[in-house]
Amino acid sequence: MELNEFERLDDLQLGGVKLFQDKRMFCFGIDAVLLANFAFVKPGNVVLDMCSGNGIIPFILYAKTKAKAIHCIEIQKENHALIQKSIDYNNAHDVIFPVCDDLNNWKEHFLPSSFDVITCNPPYIKTGGGLLNPSDSKKCARHEIFCNLEDVVSAAAKLLVPGGRFSVVHRPDRLAELIFTLKSYKLEPKRMRLVHSRLGDKPNLVLIESVRGGGSELTVDPPLYVYKNKTEYTDEIEEIYGRVK
Amino acid sequence: MELNEFERLDDLQLGGVKLFQDKRMFCFGIDAVLLANFAFVKPGNVVLDMCSGNGIIPFILYAKTKAKAIHCIEIQKENHALIQKSIDYNNAHDVIFPVCDDLNNWKEHFLPSSFDVITCNPPYIKTGGGLLNPSDSKKCARHEIFCNLEDVVSAAAKLLVPGGRFSVVHRPDRLAELIFTLKSYKLEPKRMRLVHSRLGDKPNLVLIESVRGGGSELTVDPPLYVYKNKTEYTDEIEEIYGRVK
Repeated sequence: MELNEFERLDDLQLGGVKLFQDKRMFCFGIDAVLLANFAFVKPGNVVLDMCSGNGIIPFILYAKTKAKAIHCIEIQKENHALIQKSIDYNNAHDVIFPVCDDLNNWKEHFLPSSFDVITCNPPYIKTGGGLLNPSDSKKCARHEIFCNLEDVVSAAAKLLVPGGRFSVVHRPDRLAELIFTLKSYKLEPKRMRLVHSRLGDKPNLVLIESVRGGGSELTVDPPLYVYKNKTEYTDEIEEIYGRVK
Repeated sequence: MELNEFERLDDLQLGGVKLFQDKRMFCFGIDAVLLANFAFVKPGNVVLDMCSGNGIIPFILYAKTKAKAIHCIEIQKENHALIQKSIDYNNAHDVIFPVCDDLNNWKEHFLPSSFDVITCNPPYIKTGGGLLNPSDSKKCARHEIFCNLEDVVSAAAKLLVPGGRFSVVHRPDRLAELIFTLKSYKLEPKRMRLVHSRLGDKPNLVLIESVRGGGSELTVDPPLYVYKNKTEYTDEIEEIYGRVK
């Protein structure tokens, strides 16, 4: 399989699984890797990843879990093409099923109450009043141009089976809004973890797992620190991420 | 001023301010001390402390801030008597104004939109279906017998001036419910800090400051660690608490 001048093929260091990326598009960050490791997927689960980008989360879950099926939905055609290329390369046709469409059209592709687990690394930044150019694919990955937080949460609430788990990563400055929106759609936050660069820093990411129709009791895990000094990863990050960089 | 056999007089190590406590009643914990230090009180502010117990929060704020007035409301008569005794002892009659009543009767004592800052260290535990004995004063401090989270939040939402600040401490397992309730009453969480016993532990307390009618952006502070090893406080705790123990 050939790489064009903009493409690269990254070894995820998970049993030989490799991912195509395109330097012109949004390349995955630590947030996606942490989310894929935070999400709890049981053997046989049917999974959906929303806002999949180049497919980093589906491919980590493919490598690390025994999910029966991993569906994904991504709006950008260039990303969808990368996912398909990675599926071909890894021969993952019987597990990963990609859809290229707006998340808000989910009814055209999926049945309500049909997923055990949903994951999403959504765009973090509110667009506010300013118009952004939807042809800028990197901006679409960062800004709420095609879908916003409520779109993501409302889709997850309808697509999960009762008791199904929705794991999402976001920025801490939107934590209150995230929790409020989840609870408004009866997705009860059950497990939360804040991610900090170093000891003494404010967090820069938050991971939350919510359960459709769950009881209102939250477990907050100890903080996850990324670096133990200026340049070296902590042991925990080395274990889940160190070699994927 | 005499102490009976159950009373003690604690030096708060804040300019000589002392507090009466009664061993038969609920004696203050680190949560109240941390909340009093977390709350942001400007000179001249008018403050209300709800669920005051023996008055630990009003007396720390009296010692550490230049609040114009610190009102407090506490339902248990024995606690109210302790607060009055401490007011007499510290000659704080012109700043601290205690009320002994059910918080849900706030309209009989206070005007809506009349406080710049409200603090509350509420009972943490849901009573559920089980009947608890209201004559057990320690249980009333821990369990939602006389007031629950929504009572506290709804009162704060009405009593604060627009832009006024409500600081509360609670257990992390109720964080999602707390944020949801605050936002439901237009008290926007703006600042949050989790408190952990030691590095690597899950948090056991959460401090949140919300603003009446504030914008939806939350700042999450670095974790507050209480101990740096098995027995010694961290420097931060030594500074705000070490000598009050």
